[in-house]
Formats: sequence, structure tokens, C-alpha cells
Amino acid sequence: MIDDWWGGRAVRDMLPRLFFTHFRQTSFVAEEDGELAGFLCGFLSQTHPDQAYCHFVGVAPSHRKSGLASELYERLFEAARAAGRTSVHCVTSPKNTGSIAFHTRIGFEIEAEVPGYDGSGESRVLLQKRLSA
Amino acid sequence: MIDDWWGGRAVRDMLPRLFFTHFRQTSFVAEEDGELAGFLCGFLSQTHPDQAYCHFVGVAPSHRKSGLASELYERLFEAARAAGRTSVHCVTSPKNTGSIAFHTRIGFEIEAEVPGYDGSGESRVLLQKRLSA
Repeated sequence: MIDDWWGGRAVRDMLPRLFFTHFRQTSFVAEEDGELAGFLCGFLSQTHPDQAYCHFVGVAPSHRKSGLASELYERLFEAARAAGRTSVHCVTSPKNTGSIAFHTRIGFEIEAEVPGYDGSGESRVLLQKRLSA
Repeated sequence: MIDDWWGGRAVRDMLPRLFFTHFRQTSFVAEEDGELAGFLCGFLSQTHPDQAYCHFVGVAPSHRKSGLASELYERLFEAARAAGRTSVHCVTSPKNTGSIAFHTRIGFEIEAEVPGYDGSGESRVLLQKRLSA
């Protein structure tokens, strides 16, 4: 259903099942009345033992503006803190001003904008949030 | 260049930079004369502390049938063993008989074929290789 949630944008390829299989401690699903309302896929960085990373947050159109994305992020912050991580990182498109505004609101700061970041020729904004102990 | 290596199939979306940024201990790149010859992206499962996973192996058309993919896998097996993992897992398409034959040759066994595995409606073959200590 994820491509529908994104208004037809093909984002499903960004979400192979491996994220749900192999990163369960840092991935979360929200349901209401047995229906999927939203989810977040994160992981603990293997390269950087002080970092966690959020790969994807998705909220059903009917649950937008409800604070759900922020609540899902809170779960990731807790899990990351519990695993001794001191920052959470994510990447978004500079065109996605809604995403940048949301992340800033929940405590992320822009680290850098990097041209051609994902090999697509497009640039990406790198964000990080420092976790308090 | 990865879409060219795959004869135009759009596989780039399967390879966001996060695999190269956050899973360095289990990802490997092979070069010849400064040119990329092949690479492998793997990680240690966060959910299953006895497992490692191979997400992607790519070899340049000019380096196929050279044993490079098998050599890249050897590096992953070593890294996984060093991290105390006892098996390596991967997923491929049942249509990709070349991939299944290759993995069988280097010691993988088919665990299961699962319909609709990645939410695409397509089935996937799950493979695993047990690592000797």
C-alpha cells in the first residue's frame, strides 16, 4: 500500500523486507482497529557505534497531522538511547520542505546538503538529532 | 553505473548510500586499475545475533565469470565469522536461475520460496549458508 500512501510515487523499492526482518528493535508499526496507520524503519549504525539512522517513516493519509510520525520517532529515539547511541541521522530531499520542517520541529538540525548523494544526480539534505542521555 | 551493469534494469533504488555509509565492516569494493570491478553490500542482522545478510552483489560485465563475486562473498563470510555469526542469508528471485546456481555453488542452500515476499506480488527464494567456526 505504500505507493498509494505516497500518491503513486514508487517508493516500494526503498523498502525491501530486510528492514522489517533484520532491524526489528529499531522499527515500529502503528495500527488502529487492525489497520496499518504508520511505520518507521530505523537501525543502529554498524559503522558508527554512536549513531542510529532512520531510513523511512510512512503515515497513512488518513492519519497525517495526528502526531503519529513524531510518536514513531520518539520510539526510535528511546531505542537508540537504550543502545547507547548519542545521535540519530536521516536523509531527505531538499525539495521536500515538509519533511525538513517536520524534522526541524522534532529536534533535527541540517548537517549538510550533498549533491548527487544517492547516485541519482539529485542532492540530499543530511539531518541529525543529538540525543540527551 | 549500476543500472548499466544490469542491462538497463533499474536496480539503483535498491542501493541507497546508507548501505555504504552504515555497514562498512561487511561491505566490500573491488577495483582494477582504479575502475570499479564489483562490490558487495552486507550487514550483521540486528534482530538475529547469529546471522549476517547479503543485500547486493554487483560485478561489472567485463569482470563476470572471473570468480570475483565468490571472492567478495568470501570477505563477507570472514567478517561474519569474526563477528560471531554462524549463518549468512540472502534473497533472490526464483526466475534468477543464474543467481540460485551461483549461490548453491558457494555453499548456500534454499530455505524457502515465499510468495509476495517484498510486497511486489512476486515470490522470492530465501537462501542460507552455514558458516563453519
